[in-house]
Amino acid sequence: MTPDQISRLLGHSGFKSALTHIDGAFDRFIEELITLTEIPAPPFQEEEKAAAYLGMMKESGLEEVESDEIGNVCGLIRGSGNDGFVVVAAHLDTVFPAGTDVTVRREGNKLFAPGIGDDTRGLAANLTLARAILQSGIRPKKTLLFVGDVGEEGKGDLRGIRHLFTAGKYRDRIDAFLSIDGSDTSRIVTEAVGSYRYRVTFRGPGGHSFSAFGTVNPAYAMAEVLTGLSSLELPKEPKTTATPSVFGGGTSINATPETVWFELDLRSVSQTELDRIDQEFHALLTKAVAAENARGDTSSGTITVDAQRIGNRPAGSTASDAPIVATSLAAVKAFGLSPRLESSSTDANIPISLGIPAICIGSGNGVGGRAHSLDEWIDVEREPQLRSLHALLAVILGVAGLED
Amino acid sequence: MTPDQISRLLGHSGFKSALTHIDGAFDRFIEELITLTEIPAPPFQEEEKAAAYLGMMKESGLEEVESDEIGNVCGLIRGSGNDGFVVVAAHLDTVFPAGTDVTVRREGNKLFAPGIGDDTRGLAANLTLARAILQSGIRPKKTLLFVGDVGEEGKGDLRGIRHLFTAGKYRDRIDAFLSIDGSDTSRIVTEAVGSYRYRVTFRGPGGHSFSAFGTVNPAYAMAEVLTGLSSLELPKEPKTTATPSVFGGGTSINATPETVWFELDLRSVSQTELDRIDQEFHALLTKAVAAENARGDTSSGTITVDAQRIGNRPAGSTASDAPIVATSLAAVKAFGLSPRLESSSTDANIPISLGIPAICIGSGNGVGGRAHSLDEWIDVEREPQLRSLHALLAVILGVAGLED
Repeated sequence: MTPDQISRLLGHSGFKSALTHIDGAFDRFIEELITLTEIPAPPFQEEEKAAAYLGMMKESGLEEVESDEIGNVCGLIRGSGNDGFVVVAAHLDTVFPAGTDVTVRREGNKLFAPGIGDDTRGLAANLTLARAILQSGIRPKKTLLFVGDVGEEGKGDLRGIRHLFTAGKYRDRIDAFLSIDGSDTSRIVTEAVGSYRYRVTFRGPGGHSFSAFGTVNPAYAMAEVLTGLSSLELPKEPKTTATPSVFGGGTSINATPETVWFELDLRSVSQTELDRIDQEFHALLTKAVAAENARGDTSSGTITVDAQRIGNRPAGSTASDAPIVATSLAAVKAFGLSPRLESSSTDANIPISLGIPAICIGSGNGVGGRAHSLDEWIDVEREPQLRSLHALLAVILGVAGLED
Repeated sequence: MTPDQISRLLGHSGFKSALTHIDGAFDRFIEELITLTEIPAPPFQEEEKAAAYLGMMKESGLEEVESDEIGNVCGLIRGSGNDGFVVVAAHLDTVFPAGTDVTVRREGNKLFAPGIGDDTRGLAANLTLARAILQSGIRPKKTLLFVGDVGEEGKGDLRGIRHLFTAGKYRDRIDAFLSIDGSDTSRIVTEAVGSYRYRVTFRGPGGHSFSAFGTVNPAYAMAEVLTGLSSLELPKEPKTTATPSVFGGGTSINATPETVWFELDLRSVSQTELDRIDQEFHALLTKAVAAENARGDTSSGTITVDAQRIGNRPAGSTASDAPIVATSLAAVKAFGLSPRLESSSTDANIPISLGIPAICIGSGNGVGGRAHSLDEWIDVEREPQLRSLHALLAVILGVAGLED
């Protein structure tokens, strides 16, 4: 959609009516945002929030509202055409464990609570936008599939959207994907940072630190792998990283450990580079284990290593001149924002890796912070918040098309 | 004391009477052993067991029974002379945390329970021996100071016996030390394995694994230290060891860790070697931290390291021809056992490092196992158990001397 077409969209009486509906629903938007934020949704425990969101979708007038097999909540606004669906998604899960206090605290325009911005505001925004479309009587050309999805964060490993595209009932009908996630409508993610994540466990026979000294020590194999990772050649462009992050193992200070482990985060915006460093990492494992088995005494056992892949997010990008990007840029600019293209790891990774046009875009004015911390906060000052919602409506209808 | 003198001791009518008292007290010995075992004594929580042991010491007729400042329980049998004290110690603490089931289970001659052998049998044995001396009316030349001591295990770091020798009221009057610890009266520990133990913590600025990639990673400094430890030159004689044992750090797979740590156990039977590898270890720390600060980006902070010494047990040995060793060997042999000299880390480390004659000797027939595990067990078959108690009485009175 060209800037001209966006201009026509903005002049559409039904679209203008929808913007008015958004403005009139501002208080309800905030209420629903608080209600949803105060329902915990720890990783792999999204059920309660999903049930509440399903109820809100139904109450909002969406069609065919239901949970899918993996726990995503889906609802439709039927388009006038028979062609594919446009998914408008926000994720239900947060990074916070069960028992986290998710009470929302308000200070002026600031709302504080774990998960309030990431991504509960996206969930509330999508409800508001869906109702504005339905209440204003406009009809998109393509069917809008609103999704509250599970498993975006961490070890969730994008499992909700992966299911949607690989096993869900709509999987073959989706031809564009919009993830409403992040704090800033000016940030449009087109580059999908891919990642492989591992839990790497080294095992050996263990034994008393003094009486059985000399035996192979799995910590020495781990150390060699770490040193190898520190000297991997990682390109700055396409950006590629390798980060050993979490460590553990051993049971007693007076024993050679039987097990040591670390977690590793490999990332790249290039799938080719990601696969290359993944191979180099596996070569390091083999070499380090062999070296420690050559160095130490293996009479009571040898060192072995197991690299369990606990995360797999495909890399890729939506071309910066793809129609979905041009439309989104034009729509956001039309509301006075200065959009920029970015790279990140989001639900959009999945469709991008499948060659389906996809972006991720934020739902606020960019003011806020401390996402993934207990001090997470967002700013919901009325005028900029409405501008974000307006711009998102233009993005959605720009991508889906609008009946005259 | 020469073998001849041991023969005279064995022929002493009072001594023979004391052996008879031991035999008659066998059932009580087992009862007290079970009673004491079933009182938990986790590290740094020995109070309940100490109070019970204090009551048993008083009931047994020891003099000046009291707890000292650190929690050791002490009681005397006054000698006929004015010269120094002989300490007869067993430790109150076990390695088992609060809440461990310490119920004793009996199968024939086998008793199963955490801590039953290490070192509750030593505690019960010392009570039995003290009563046998008192009831038979014999009088040692030197004063016997019976001690149930705290903090022998792990991070207790020998604090009970360290206090006894460095701060306790009897500290300047002790001229021999017998630790009754271990499962075998044939094993006489004369060589004190010394150790330094560290918790080594590396800190850095942390940051996001992708967006802040390139920053210094404390895990890389740790890896270099580990690799350095793996190639330290450690003599086999005097045996010297360095064991990285327990690991941790990091909070999230998608973040460079702010903190990683490991625990290190350095040991040697030579204090000189122990101090030498300790210096080499500290040099490794400095070098590894500098290397990582040179390799990575330090714009948001540098790597630092802190090596907290959490254990310090001095090394040393009692000469194998020292009178305390000759006496003990002769006494044990006189009861048909085949004693051998060994090295270990025991309460005797403290007096040995101070140049005070000291040994550690076990209180059973050596049949048993799984010490420091929930499946710990010992054998208390009457005849060999009585032989151990008899031999221990000969060791004690051999070292302390006996009035004719």
